[in-house]
Amino acid sequence: MSLSPLTDRLVEALTLLPGVGKKTAQRMALYLLERNRQGGQLLAKCLQDAMEKVGHCSRCRIHSEELICRICSHPSRDQAVLCIVENPADALAVEQSGSFRGVYFILMGHLSPLDGIGPEQLGIRQLIERVAAGEINEIIIATNPTIEGEATAHYIADSLKDHSVMVSRIAHGVPMGGELEYADGGTLHHAFAGRRRLE
Amino acid sequence: MSLSPLTDRLVEALTLLPGVGKKTAQRMALYLLERNRQGGQLLAKCLQDAMEKVGHCSRCRIHSEELICRICSHPSRDQAVLCIVENPADALAVEQSGSFRGVYFILMGHLSPLDGIGPEQLGIRQLIERVAAGEINEIIIATNPTIEGEATAHYIADSLKDHSVMVSRIAHGVPMGGELEYADGGTLHHAFAGRRRLE
Repeated sequence: MSLSPLTDRLVEALTLLPGVGKKTAQRMALYLLERNRQGGQLLAKCLQDAMEKVGHCSRCRIHSEELICRICSHPSRDQAVLCIVENPADALAVEQSGSFRGVYFILMGHLSPLDGIGPEQLGIRQLIERVAAGEINEIIIATNPTIEGEATAHYIADSLKDHSVMVSRIAHGVPMGGELEYADGGTLHHAFAGRRRLE
Repeated sequence: MSLSPLTDRLVEALTLLPGVGKKTAQRMALYLLERNRQGGQLLAKCLQDAMEKVGHCSRCRIHSEELICRICSHPSRDQAVLCIVENPADALAVEQSGSFRGVYFILMGHLSPLDGIGPEQLGIRQLIERVAAGEINEIIIATNPTIEGEATAHYIADSLKDHSVMVSRIAHGVPMGGELEYADGGTLHHAFAGRRRLE
């Protein structure tokens, strides 16, 4: 069932958003039409602008409409410490935790030969060039603890082993606030293997 | 934490959608930027078109860019039977149930004197004119079973009592598939008061 061609098309287009089904899209469309047309127009404009103009930072590859992003160009960030993550969302999560004051390098994915994603697509050559140029002292690999993320982490560590840079991997284990009872085997394995002496 | 001015503005604008918080908006923005820019542009266009061009059907007041909406102009709908609902979403719900083949009249709200919403805002004069013109044989009032919805239903029934039109209210009771145990007092009250003899 449908209202009018333009409304139908709007509902259809809203389902392109992740996590938005037909029913939610209908509710969104009706809400904007009934109560916030100005907001709908603002959203249209912001979408258009972002889709057209946002590119990637030339240093860390995060989304940015400027050549060098906010983080890379921030004077108080330590340019010699690089955190490697798979996606911009991962970098945002690290940022929100406030636990890192260096800069990022975003792979925009992980090694996945079947999908045609190799080192070239992940910008690993670019990364090695920066390391070779002596810009970077330390690299923290924060790819996801999945099979592909681990493979990518090992590939990067391997590629950098002839360079004088410290390469580490973030710790994996039982999450804070989590309960051992609900932790899976892989997590517990990492938690035990990575145990640290209490001083 | 944020990525770039344009991305921030997009995230902000996405939170205008009902049920979308900061975190979800961020996920949506990154998804569109990373994987579906074309989709993002399509959505921008659909939003812009709908916000600008969609008005209201001159007969039933539902959202439509045409003067008479799809339902009101459909040849197989019974123009003499009118279902009165509060919102377009309510009409869509009735449509999806397939239980009605007449046409609708959308109040676009309910009586709410404190918010300045009286009979005039709900189009009740327009409704009475149509009834007086003899166009309509039967009116089914399907406003929500809330205090305001009930008051609106009674107001409409009252306004029409001098006209030769059959006015009814949809039944309220325990929903199909629901359990008595979880039904509230008001629902059970309606269910008992509206009981029907099993033949």
